[in-house]
Amino acid sequence: MKEVAVGIDIGGTYTKYGLIDRDGNCLINGSISTTQEKELSSYLSLLKSTIDEAAEGVKESVKIKGVGVGAPNGNFYKGTIEYAPNLAWSGIVPFIDEFKKSYDLPMYLTNDANAAAIGEMVYGSAKNMKNFIIITLGTGLGSGLVVNGELVYGHDGFAGELGHLTIVRGGRMCATGRRGSLEAYVSAPGIRRTVFELLADSLEASEFRDVTFNQLTAKMISDAAKRGDKIALEAFERTGKYLGEALADTVAHTSPQAIFLFGGLANAGELIIEPTKRYMERNLLKIFRDKVNILPSGLTETNAAVMGASALVWKELGN
Amino acid sequence: MKEVAVGIDIGGTYTKYGLIDRDGNCLINGSISTTQEKELSSYLSLLKSTIDEAAEGVKESVKIKGVGVGAPNGNFYKGTIEYAPNLAWSGIVPFIDEFKKSYDLPMYLTNDANAAAIGEMVYGSAKNMKNFIIITLGTGLGSGLVVNGELVYGHDGFAGELGHLTIVRGGRMCATGRRGSLEAYVSAPGIRRTVFELLADSLEASEFRDVTFNQLTAKMISDAAKRGDKIALEAFERTGKYLGEALADTVAHTSPQAIFLFGGLANAGELIIEPTKRYMERNLLKIFRDKVNILPSGLTETNAAVMGASALVWKELGN
Repeated sequence: MKEVAVGIDIGGTYTKYGLIDRDGNCLINGSISTTQEKELSSYLSLLKSTIDEAAEGVKESVKIKGVGVGAPNGNFYKGTIEYAPNLAWSGIVPFIDEFKKSYDLPMYLTNDANAAAIGEMVYGSAKNMKNFIIITLGTGLGSGLVVNGELVYGHDGFAGELGHLTIVRGGRMCATGRRGSLEAYVSAPGIRRTVFELLADSLEASEFRDVTFNQLTAKMISDAAKRGDKIALEAFERTGKYLGEALADTVAHTSPQAIFLFGGLANAGELIIEPTKRYMERNLLKIFRDKVNILPSGLTETNAAVMGASALVWKELGN
Repeated sequence: MKEVAVGIDIGGTYTKYGLIDRDGNCLINGSISTTQEKELSSYLSLLKSTIDEAAEGVKESVKIKGVGVGAPNGNFYKGTIEYAPNLAWSGIVPFIDEFKKSYDLPMYLTNDANAAAIGEMVYGSAKNMKNFIIITLGTGLGSGLVVNGELVYGHDGFAGELGHLTIVRGGRMCATGRRGSLEAYVSAPGIRRTVFELLADSLEASEFRDVTFNQLTAKMISDAAKRGDKIALEAFERTGKYLGEALADTVAHTSPQAIFLFGGLANAGELIIEPTKRYMERNLLKIFRDKVNILPSGLTETNAAVMGASALVWKELGN
């Protein structure tokens, strides 16, 4: 009988799930629509029956030890999803309380970036680290902070919102209505905005002179940078500057051993890591210099969010 | 037999000590010169003999359970004092290893702001708090972060250096050679610099038009503010703005229940607390608003550093 944890990653469109063993092997995975069932109870019934069927389909017999859920605005302490902007359920959703009605198992919920941090700790490159940070670079900038071997949830369960550090006073508009947030600069849409700022500001030739804002993607920017497009290269330089300066302040808070970059934009590799490291070092207090590694995440992109969610179970059950 | 902890606070000029019981009562206290004995070993002998004599002078007989030391650049993990700019010992000083040669007791060392945080937790206003921050406002700006009930020491023992957050890119010179650090704005010398900036920038009448930079003290600024001096009032407004904006970023890291202000400048009370709170709230992400208290420290100023150092002992021995 193989022991597994269920990992669930709730996105605006799809809810992905997987059965993962203690070593991080994914035995089976799949997804359902997050929006097909309007009522939370019907959605949860569908989710459970889909997972149960999947478990029966695994060759060796499995014992589910617990369920871990990653969701936007997930509150670890309360098991609630609170005012998540991309989900149809409004207000404060008592997700775990409701799900427990059908599943008599240990259940844990947190936001997706925190789940990624725990995934890094349980299966990834942070297995022996007590103090590290993960930065998830996608549509926004998420983060998970680990201190003394524990995830930092804070007083209210919402700690680790580094995407909302103010890095430019009065700077770019952010979806939250605030200005100058780190994620308005360092994220897939952020680097796109930086490219357009540079197209406006400089006279440099660029393949992006014939591309619309809506056409442009972060992947196109890293591809162009690899081909030597000067605007694309400068966009990565600036993105690294913004992130590196912000991370210098983060190091002054928790002095981590390493900072992992995860997600779409992180796939640009050294294009983003090198300037980030350079600007971080330049802004660090002397005692912190040459101590903090900036590394790509050890979790492979495919299924990483589901893996992270499942890792919550092993972490909480004491691995 | 009363159980006590020795608290030692090492400053550039004086080394203060005290014998403190579990409830935070100081049975006896005193000080020696930090600089009189040039050799560490002679200094430590003098310190021990002075403390032993003091212990004998206490009316009821006492049992010393441990020694806690607060020192600039104190490394909790290693018990070392590393490159402390204001102390005569140079390089990395193996303080605890040396002191243990004469005292066979549990010994702990950390920096003074961390000691203040632990003091707040053991004796002060944070007794029931698992997530809080202390900001010490003196010659510099120190900080101690508490997460999940534990002090954040970080990977290297030096976490919690909020005085060195960069709040103005290319801003004021700082003693570290960097520019725009929080403590160059928010500290006793910082508010003095702000007053002089305002004297230069505005045409407002002020009692400080007849005061030199070297004459000016933070106490004079708070006294003048209470008398309605407009420059002094604006200096507190700006100091609160700098601190409040920085703390909004700090809340995004660890989401604390409260932030305590401690030390000389904190004695200005609402003059500093009110604008700090106002600017912090204005810059917080919505989910953090109206949740974080900014409070005066519950440790009384006199002897607070010694109290904090002694609290390390009770904290580490499990109170």
